Amino acid sequence: MRPENRALDQLRSTTIETGVSRYAEGSCLIKFGHTHVLVTASVDENVPRWMKGKGKGWVTAEYGMLPRSTHTRNNREAARGKQGGRTVEIQRLIGRSLRAVTDLEALGERQIVVDCDVMQADGGTRTASITGAWVALSMACATLVEKGLIKTNPITSPMAAVSCGIVDGTCRLDLEYTEDSAAQADANFVLTANGGIIEVQATAEEEPFSGEQMDELTRLARKGIAELCEMQKAALK
Amino acid sequence: MRPENRALDQLRSTTIETGVSRYAEGSCLIKFGHTHVLVTASVDENVPRWMKGKGKGWVTAEYGMLPRSTHTRNNREAARGKQGGRTVEIQRLIGRSLRAVTDLEALGERQIVVDCDVMQADGGTRTASITGAWVALSMACATLVEKGLIKTNPITSPMAAVSCGIVDGTCRLDLEYTEDSAAQADANFVLTANGGIIEVQATAEEEPFSGEQMDELTRLARKGIAELCEMQKAALK
Amino acid sequence: MRPENRALDQLRSTTIETGVSRYAEGSCLIKFGHTHVLVTASVDENVPRWMKGKGKGWVTAEYGMLPRSTHTRNNREAARGKQGGRTVEIQRLIGRSLRAVTDLEALGERQIVVDCDVMQADGGTRTASITGAWVALSMACATLVEKGLIKTNPITSPMAAVSCGIVDGTCRLDLEYTEDSAAQADANFVLTANGGIIEVQATAEEEPFSGEQMDELTRLARKGIAELCEMQKAALK
Amino acid sequence: MRPENRALDQLRSTTIETGVSRYAEGSCLIKFGHTHVLVTASVDENVPRWMKGKGKGWVTAEYGMLPRSTHTRNNREAARGKQGGRTVEIQRLIGRSLRAVTDLEALGERQIVVDCDVMQADGGTRTASITGAWVALSMACATLVEKGLIKTNPITSPMAAVSCGIVDGTCRLDLEYTEDSAAQADANFVLTANGGIIEVQATAEEEPFSGEQMDELTRLARKGIAELCEMQKAALK
Amino acid sequence: MRPENRALDQLRSTTIETGVSRYAEGSCLIKFGHTHVLVTASVDENVPRWMKGKGKGWVTAEYGMLPRSTHTRNNREAARGKQGGRTVEIQRLIGRSLRAVTDLEALGERQIVVDCDVMQADGGTRTASITGAWVALSMACATLVEKGLIKTNPITSPMAAVSCGIVDGTCRLDLEYTEDSAAQADANFVLTANGGIIEVQATAEEEPFSGEQMDELTRLARKGIAELCEMQKAALK
Amino acid sequence: MRPENRALDQLRSTTIETGVSRYAEGSCLIKFGHTHVLVTASVDENVPRWMKGKGKGWVTAEYGMLPRSTHTRNNREAARGKQGGRTVEIQRLIGRSLRAVTDLEALGERQIVVDCDVMQADGGTRTASITGAWVALSMACATLVEKGLIKTNPITSPMAAVSCGIVDGTCRLDLEYTEDSAAQADANFVLTANGGIIEVQATAEEEPFSGEQMDELTRLARKGIAELCEMQKAALK
Repeated sequence: MRPENRALDQLRSTTIETGVSRYAEGSCLIKFGHTHVLVTASVDENVPRWMKGKGKGWVTAEYGMLPRSTHTRNNREAARGKQGGRTVEIQRLIGRSLRAVTDLEALGERQIVVDCDVMQADGGTRTASITGAWVALSMACATLVEKGLIKTNPITSPMAAVSCGIVDGTCRLDLEYTEDSAAQADANFVLTANGGIIEVQATAEEEPFSGEQMDELTRLARKGIAELCEMQKAALK
Repeated sequence: MRPENRALDQLRSTTIETGVSRYAEGSCLIKFGHTHVLVTASVDENVPRWMKGKGKGWVTAEYGMLPRSTHTRNNREAARGKQGGRTVEIQRLIGRSLRAVTDLEALGERQIVVDCDVMQADGGTRTASITGAWVALSMACATLVEKGLIKTNPITSPMAAVSCGIVDGTCRLDLEYTEDSAAQADANFVLTANGGIIEVQATAEEEPFSGEQMDELTRLARKGIAELCEMQKAALK
Repeated sequence: MRPENRALDQLRSTTIETGVSRYAEGSCLIKFGHTHVLVTASVDENVPRWMKGKGKGWVTAEYGMLPRSTHTRNNREAARGKQGGRTVEIQRLIGRSLRAVTDLEALGERQIVVDCDVMQADGGTRTASITGAWVALSMACATLVEKGLIKTNPITSPMAAVSCGIVDGTCRLDLEYTEDSAAQADANFVLTANGGIIEVQATAEEEPFSGEQMDELTRLARKGIAELCEMQKAALK
Repeated sequence: MRPENRALDQLRSTTIETGVSRYAEGSCLIKFGHTHVLVTASVDENVPRWMKGKGKGWVTAEYGMLPRSTHTRNNREAARGKQGGRTVEIQRLIGRSLRAVTDLEALGERQIVVDCDVMQADGGTRTASITGAWVALSMACATLVEKGLIKTNPITSPMAAVSCGIVDGTCRLDLEYTEDSAAQADANFVLTANGGIIEVQATAEEEPFSGEQMDELTRLARKGIAELCEMQKAALK
Repeated sequence: MRPENRALDQLRSTTIETGVSRYAEGSCLIKFGHTHVLVTASVDENVPRWMKGKGKGWVTAEYGMLPRSTHTRNNREAARGKQGGRTVEIQRLIGRSLRAVTDLEALGERQIVVDCDVMQADGGTRTASITGAWVALSMACATLVEKGLIKTNPITSPMAAVSCGIVDGTCRLDLEYTEDSAAQADANFVLTANGGIIEVQATAEEEPFSGEQMDELTRLARKGIAELCEMQKAALK
Repeated sequence: MRPENRALDQLRSTTIETGVSRYAEGSCLIKFGHTHVLVTASVDENVPRWMKGKGKGWVTAEYGMLPRSTHTRNNREAARGKQGGRTVEIQRLIGRSLRAVTDLEALGERQIVVDCDVMQADGGTRTASITGAWVALSMACATLVEKGLIKTNPITSPMAAVSCGIVDGTCRLDLEYTEDSAAQADANFVLTANGGIIEVQATAEEEPFSGEQMDELTRLARKGIAELCEMQKAALK
């Protein structure tokens, strides 16, 4: 019934390959099915101006899609001269999610910038980005510990993200593009490995949905995120 | 314990004054305590270019804050030359919420633009905007019916929005600024009068929160939104 | 003959309500008939970079119109990404006018930013803005004196502004929109209470007008501005 | 007493050289002393989109200063990515002044764009621009008549502009830079050859000035503009 | 003497992997040593507005670097709001080079947009981009032929690009970053397989170089480009 | 056969008039036939921020065209809000060329900005700009020596630029517009007086050209540039 006979509570084929950048302090290529995101985490020994002298660090994220990551080509945001509203929303979400599991005091007065660039898009680019961003950020933090720049790893919890939605009246985990574009409701969950809530964004596409449906979407998300956190752990060895 | 001895599940003093603009097809000044938002709904007989010829209408929203609506002055977005990320996020949320309760076919090939301008801000500007926007949009639609331009009012359901949050370990309804800035978690709900979900956005500020807390926030939101929908009805007579 | 039987040398119904902002150091809502402008004056203890270390203060102004303050909706300048030429002209005029009656040395090395936001427009928005801006600025300066930050109020003179114009061959005071759009000539005067000239801008709309007509417009402006200065005084108590 | 012993009512040495551009339909290099402005008038057989189908033409102007036209270099507006407020104000003034002496119906549905580029600045760049712009526009209109595209020249009146000001307590005609920067008041007049008013902009720099002083500035402007209109006539043969 | 004992006239290890994008009509991942560029060619059935109705097609290119493709992170051009001068130069060069080997009439009234996104940079990103762009463009054109949209492949010649430079007094082929940053002169060649010149850009970094050195750089480029064209042929099967 | 019977290896009538700006430290008006460029060199005692404290100076250039310097009017870049790709390319080329003949240590920690503004364009604006820029820069450096700010003139070599191209199958020196727009290939050379290479940019317009043709274009450029360097020397006395 779902494309490629996926079960309603089944993730797409997912892989996380680390160390894909020769220069970045942390990096991975994460694939949620045909959705591929290249993530790098860059350490900057300076914090933004408005944070100077507070003895705390900062974690932020930027998101972009290659112009032909999608079925038809989208104009390059750099050429249009500004980031679109969707991009701004997504990169703010990624940054907030990462900061929720980072002890900024422990990071010290430095910044880590995580770049999520979508190579190929088939639904779920923001949740793949967050899941990969946690891996790249963890690697960059580990590097700081190894170099003796900080004493303990400031990451406070494993964390991942997944989308769920209501399609043809059924609640489903990890929507791909054809499902996403036909969904009656669409929800993105950012949770810790044991189900703690970091961010939930649920949106009705056509008409309101019920609290019971919301509960079922939440249940699916918990299951998927527990699995994703296992893959993150494996990817980091 | 809460400022001005509010109960945990109590809305701030709320008023909705309609007809505040001499020109707009629908308008209101909505006050959630010291948060004041002026909302206008403007009918435009043209739809955006990408919607032409589809026989459907469009509803969109813009949001702005007066420079001194806040404790200290913020630079004017028009002078800075772009709308900030927060503004973009909020106006996209308002527009999506309105479209979820509008039958765009019934609206016909025309556009309604809802402007939400914050005169004074004390927390909850986005939820006050959505609640007021529904009123102004309803008035503009009623005007179209009166003029005979459309046959039936395309608004499919009453709808309002409210914020909830966890402050000092307690779940609270309708946070004001001092509470909002100290919250451990912060959630915005857009619901129909009978609790159908249009949009939920919940964010942990410091550390993850539990599913039980999320349930309590949802319960508070249902109560508050039922009350707000009564006030909307009264404001429209 | 004029709308609502106004005499040629008669102001529209004018009111000035002070203290309309909970946060601003000075504020008023000024109404010239159906033209309504919300004015706030914000004290900033820093001067712009190019003025640092000169021992003098600065007064500047910004102007904006709400998108639906006019008969048909105008696009939001923040969304278009720049302030239009008319906006730039008007806010420069407001700032110059305020500085002409402010002793910048007496103000000390701080800045006051006056924001004039047009809620509803029916002609004369720039003159209403200037007249209201003087009130809000005076209040903000009085606050500085009260707090002991400066010794004497740096405002050197009462001042107000009004438009005059030639419509249907007659010179008229304080044009409203329908008159303004039909005027053969249009002049904005910024004068002190006793008729000293701060700024005069007169423009022929269709064909040149005579020096005698200019003299009559000036006479009308003197009368109107004397009345407006009385209202300012009353509003400040 | 004035630089180079100029009388209070004496223009600087002024020249107008026409035909300085190989391509433009009308052009001149106008010099008010050391202020040099290159003016071109370009005929465009299309009107702006908002004027299409009205059977009328349009005249507009753009103004720019070469980066090193001034004592110290100013950043290039093209590099900064926007035209400054002063530039916007000036080019709007030039355009309005030209339209006040052009019969737009007689021009037919076409546009003339006048570019005023300041090669060297020593005060009075806007008034030199307007005076030269009238010459270039007249030439371009004459070309249209010669080519048989229109029957009669749409220019309705000779027109020129000059600045006057109060310096060291004396009213003076045609201020150069050192006078302008020390002026107590500064006024720009755009008048027809026989003194009809097109535009007057008078500004107090430090403190208000009197109606009598305004009258004297107006008298000086009439004298200077009559002389400038003679030079324009001579330049056009 | 060169890094990794490369001979002066030896290319870095080079690979071209085609078909790396699920959606693009043509694509490849090209590697010149550690320089990796992802190239897609997208067919758009519309030409730019200024080319409509001419019965000809258009080929254009865009270029970007991922923020952490370099040793230290560069700000994202989309976030800065404009493409830098270097980016603009490079993408104009890529587009010109491609058009020089494309019969635009044979392409028909459609556009092909080639995107070159640098995943990792180690010198020579523009020449790798051009070399890969020719492959992706060829694939997209072949697709058009297969679909019967055009009769013959509009590519008129094989073509590739390589950089050469003078480092430590020796002329070298295909500079990597450490060589590039120490070069006395730097030249980029775009040549056909048999040495026809499409574009040559040679720049002295410190002091002028001689015609003899230019001849030697040209000889190296011819050798390298002949080899690259063989690899392109192999990659296309 | 060429316009005005020019020989294939003949420059257009060329003049260089120095000292055309009252304010700039160096300036000239250079004419290559009907191509006229006004060049100023401005000394700024501050270097750009990224160069501070390095004990070296900086030379940079900006380029612009007056809107009606061309056959038909082009929109003003300041009004469009950004410099076009061609402008960016040209001003980067001018700056690089100037720095290649300037000893930046000898210049001391200050900046010279060279502005090249095209008054009238008939092909070869970038090469006329470079040739004139060398003159203006030399004058500004001589001024610094005269004032005792630096000991020796930091200009290390005479240098000029010229375009060559292949038109109707013949190689020609110094193309004018009608030739340029019909050229099969187009090359810009920046050489020292004795033929040392600073920059070469050669581009095939339609189809590749041969190495022999490139050699002939180079020979023509050497001849032309030797003559231009003589004129520069004469212009500087």
